[in-house]
Amino acid sequence: MSDVHAPNLRWDDPRWLARAISAVVEGEPAAEPLLRTAYAAGGRARTVGLTGPPGSGKSTLVDALARLYRKSGEQLGIVAVDPTSPFTGGAILGDRIRMQAHHADPGIFIRSLATRGALGGLAAAAGGVVALLDAAGKDRILVETVGVGQDEVDVIQLVDVTVVVLVPGMGDEVQAIKAGLMEIADIFVINKADRGPDRLEQEIKGMLGLAPNAHAADAWRPPIVKTVATEAAGVPELAAAVAQRLEWLESHGGLAAHRAAQWQQRLRQLARDRLAARLLDPLLDDARVAAAAGDVVAHLADPYSLVDAWIAAALQR
Amino acid sequence: MSDVHAPNLRWDDPRWLARAISAVVEGEPAAEPLLRTAYAAGGRARTVGLTGPPGSGKSTLVDALARLYRKSGEQLGIVAVDPTSPFTGGAILGDRIRMQAHHADPGIFIRSLATRGALGGLAAAAGGVVALLDAAGKDRILVETVGVGQDEVDVIQLVDVTVVVLVPGMGDEVQAIKAGLMEIADIFVINKADRGPDRLEQEIKGMLGLAPNAHAADAWRPPIVKTVATEAAGVPELAAAVAQRLEWLESHGGLAAHRAAQWQQRLRQLARDRLAARLLDPLLDDARVAAAAGDVVAHLADPYSLVDAWIAAALQR
Repeated sequence: MSDVHAPNLRWDDPRWLARAISAVVEGEPAAEPLLRTAYAAGGRARTVGLTGPPGSGKSTLVDALARLYRKSGEQLGIVAVDPTSPFTGGAILGDRIRMQAHHADPGIFIRSLATRGALGGLAAAAGGVVALLDAAGKDRILVETVGVGQDEVDVIQLVDVTVVVLVPGMGDEVQAIKAGLMEIADIFVINKADRGPDRLEQEIKGMLGLAPNAHAADAWRPPIVKTVATEAAGVPELAAAVAQRLEWLESHGGLAAHRAAQWQQRLRQLARDRLAARLLDPLLDDARVAAAAGDVVAHLADPYSLVDAWIAAALQR
Repeated sequence: MSDVHAPNLRWDDPRWLARAISAVVEGEPAAEPLLRTAYAAGGRARTVGLTGPPGSGKSTLVDALARLYRKSGEQLGIVAVDPTSPFTGGAILGDRIRMQAHHADPGIFIRSLATRGALGGLAAAAGGVVALLDAAGKDRILVETVGVGQDEVDVIQLVDVTVVVLVPGMGDEVQAIKAGLMEIADIFVINKADRGPDRLEQEIKGMLGLAPNAHAADAWRPPIVKTVATEAAGVPELAAAVAQRLEWLESHGGLAAHRAAQWQQRLRQLARDRLAARLLDPLLDDARVAAAAGDVVAHLADPYSLVDAWIAAALQR
């Protein structure tokens, strides 16, 4: 991977970019100089995250949105964060299928990320990929996540505008999902809206009415956009809602301030990761940790005393 | 919370236990002595985790399983890990609804955990709750998680037996979910199996056949149990599968060895959390982090240089 080092930057070469992204995702030594350069150069791209429960048709919606942005001449990056397994290679397979759909279009660069194996966590890896796509001159980057857990919330902290995608009639636990996604949504999409009348829109409105600042004069009120992604219906309206949100951010403190607020959490996490890599990783070889784990299970030591002894040893080095 | 300190342990008082759990979840100073005591005393309870995508009917299945175990006289703990929001109070509401269903039964202790606000992460908090319930003398602890992300995988590392709950016909993205859950499943449940013939069972068998050790003579082969949780159908078969898995673990290295393998990851995470709490938290007040985040967005500094300077300062203290 010597060709991804800073002196040989070739941001406009998709094959080089793909290798650079792999270096970041896999935590290769070349990753850090690449990311330092990317963060120094970046910040131009607008980033949009789409999240929601499984089965809501996010991938189809992302593809339809990408086609719309391409028609206005934008260069696009797509980062698809998929649950996967080393055992089935799910994400990579999906990547290839989607790459074929956009095969003729060099203006769209697609990368899938698996939920395991990324150094420093999935969100850190996704942030690195977004930074590289940004530095590579993409006008807009779409980040798609499957799921409703903390991973997805962390990924969404990387983007300027967050779209939560729901579908009518998803079952008993949708109430809990909606609650979890409610506070991160800038825009709601009701996809598969052709399924007929449903209580979903009224439920979303009801929950939005409970928000602490729902009635403040100047608050952003998340719009609800209805789409049928398979027919690209409602997609222009979604793009318009994204543009409105970006305009609102510019007129309420600015996009830079919004991004700075997101970077606070990211910097804290990065500090934790790098501190552990520096002090703990050299000390905690597998044999030492395995012996300690055996002691915990055998009640020979409590976990706190063990860990405190490790930290004391790390600080004395 | 002085009454949750070690000298006043009252493990058999449900109201005291509820307050002790709150102290752990909220990271109060009383939490650490409580947990040291709990880890030293515990290890007796058998723990079963149930996970799967939203809408799979996990809560109903957990309740049916709990009723079955209660019939054989077991003392039960249930830990329900729910996505929630400070804004709707989803988890707490769900907790109250479920508590009412078991109101007449002091042999079941139920606690919901939200996906935010727990110090050191949701899995660490769930581990603490399980340890307290174990120390309080529960025979069996059921841990239920909603979702398919890394949080859920981490939670599942706390339990002896992992049950993955799926339902027929959940839509396009189920393939990806199944891939993500495949490697953590000890037992599969096809819930709502009365929905009629479906390809799900064949798909699961097909994926299991691809597992690296699927054909080893001595490998555990995850059984597939069909249930209709609303009618408690298939629940005795699920309990039998759980018992078989526990017996298999005892005859293949022992449950203690299985738990020790899980503790390796937990100890590494605990070390990271405590190291950050000791070195970084005193240094990184909000004003400092906010200023740094502004510098990143303004391209006055790259995140790595900033974080490395923090770490250097922390180590010089």
